[in-house]
Amino acid sequence: MTTDAKTRLDALAKPPGSLGKLERLALRLAATQGRLDPRTRPRRLVIFAGDHGVVADGVGLWPSAVTGAMMRLMREGRSSASALGRAAGAEFLLVDAGSLTEGLAPGPGFLDARVGRGTASLAHGPAMSVAEFDAAWALGARVAAEAAGQGIAVLALGEMGIGNTTAAAALGALLTGEAPEAMVGPGAGASPESLARKRAVVAAAVARARAEPDHRAAIAGLCGYEIAALAGCIAEGSRHRLTVVLDGLIVGAAALVAQRLHPGALDGAIAAHVGAEPGHARMLATLGLEPFLDWELRLGEGSGAALLLPLLDGAAALLTEVATLAEVTGG
Amino acid sequence: MTTDAKTRLDALAKPPGSLGKLERLALRLAATQGRLDPRTRPRRLVIFAGDHGVVADGVGLWPSAVTGAMMRLMREGRSSASALGRAAGAEFLLVDAGSLTEGLAPGPGFLDARVGRGTASLAHGPAMSVAEFDAAWALGARVAAEAAGQGIAVLALGEMGIGNTTAAAALGALLTGEAPEAMVGPGAGASPESLARKRAVVAAAVARARAEPDHRAAIAGLCGYEIAALAGCIAEGSRHRLTVVLDGLIVGAAALVAQRLHPGALDGAIAAHVGAEPGHARMLATLGLEPFLDWELRLGEGSGAALLLPLLDGAAALLTEVATLAEVTGG
Repeated sequence: MTTDAKTRLDALAKPPGSLGKLERLALRLAATQGRLDPRTRPRRLVIFAGDHGVVADGVGLWPSAVTGAMMRLMREGRSSASALGRAAGAEFLLVDAGSLTEGLAPGPGFLDARVGRGTASLAHGPAMSVAEFDAAWALGARVAAEAAGQGIAVLALGEMGIGNTTAAAALGALLTGEAPEAMVGPGAGASPESLARKRAVVAAAVARARAEPDHRAAIAGLCGYEIAALAGCIAEGSRHRLTVVLDGLIVGAAALVAQRLHPGALDGAIAAHVGAEPGHARMLATLGLEPFLDWELRLGEGSGAALLLPLLDGAAALLTEVATLAEVTGG
Repeated sequence: MTTDAKTRLDALAKPPGSLGKLERLALRLAATQGRLDPRTRPRRLVIFAGDHGVVADGVGLWPSAVTGAMMRLMREGRSSASALGRAAGAEFLLVDAGSLTEGLAPGPGFLDARVGRGTASLAHGPAMSVAEFDAAWALGARVAAEAAGQGIAVLALGEMGIGNTTAAAALGALLTGEAPEAMVGPGAGASPESLARKRAVVAAAVARARAEPDHRAAIAGLCGYEIAALAGCIAEGSRHRLTVVLDGLIVGAAALVAQRLHPGALDGAIAAHVGAEPGHARMLATLGLEPFLDWELRLGEGSGAALLLPLLDGAAALLTEVATLAEVTGG
């Protein structure tokens, strides 16, 4: 498939390789769907939300209440990623995998499927049990399967969860083998003190996880509900030959989890961008995915994944709408 | 305006600066139109075509006939840039500013307004007279003015012309002060021999231009009809407060011409990308424009400008559709 797509691109009426990364995006897009004429619509931006007990340990500047405030804003379509997704013609779905937010009314574009009400703090023990991890994974897998059943071609994945850069950094260190301190950045906001606490918490949690003989338990102990759900969604989306567009650091951590636990989990994955958080580039290297944008993004919420969506249209058009050199020269 | 837009972005419900280059694109977009709610549609991709006498001197691998073949393909909507423009929802207009192509029928999306039938070779003397340069500039200005009159918000600019990387490299050296050899790359294709000829031709032409006391004559002597038309289009588009999205090396050379001859010529300009040709980054530095994509593009034809178009939608949505932090917190 990739070979066929490469042959097609090289035959087009242009110097071979002259569209650089756009050609590599076209190859990757074709590979994810296993077809030379990949679809890019309909597309859905899915945000998984969850809260993190570690916030109480002072690892960042924002309280967990911000998770709920942003979820409300997403439901109104007025978050940054909502606006970017709409500009890209994507449907929007918010999935509460485990936030502390109460009082969000059910309705279109929102699924309250909480596995728990915030994780336990990974600073003091496992963030969740293996059973909870499996339940969150299954939730994400269900979201992907439903999208496939509804004919969705492209899933763009994002997250919302104050404290989740701490969990992502810990998972990143565990699953890439990188030193914990190399994975820790300021996230959504940090003071020198909060950053120092974040580093210490991540280092201790990773040491504990590395000592845990059961791999699933080690991962669950560092995970977030939204991260586990994202991992299941990536793996199941790939199984259904959806194109699964990954946002930044947190979705990257989820992809690492999926890669470790599920063969072929990344078959559908495209890395939208490499973010400003220091660990993200290292994660992408382990995932074996080339990022397509380098726009210094550090918001999360699916913003980078939403930004890449219209560029998929160009990549698909290159494969399907451009003449070959042989057609032009009559050869 | 830029200050107002910055204030707006910093007030949004997200950590300030957390959308990196997207925020800078939003600021630039607002600045080009002089409004906080910039429009991104309707949009038009305009390709200016022209041929170059220097092709007969063996500076590249493709014959001038390829210019006409690609123009035909563009009229059929089957070139790479045609497909990318269509994917981005842009109208398409091909303007023949001076090609050698005969027999292209008039019709929608095509303007035959040739100032000449290919330039003279800059290897042996001036490529065109100042009068021809002025006529080509006026053609481009007319295309921009008509677009403004038709309510177009965004002009994406590209070119087609075998041999025009030679002209662009020479103009780049003249107008940036860079050494000619630093501006010369393989263009659409090169052998070691053709590249050596291209370097020698550019160096000699730039030396001649630098000795020419009349600035317009120096530029005209290195120019292409499509490049002069692009320069006029950029300057006039800016005057009408259109957003003018620049493609790669050749459009960059045109922007340098416009910058040198016309104050405020770049007020509307956005650099879509930095291309693979070595001189392009240096041109952008002199233009004072930050490129937004770095996708190793080296096709030209407006491909990079077309790719950036949907990202403008995201930038505009950020300015107009996202809640402020004060709205979220009730502050």
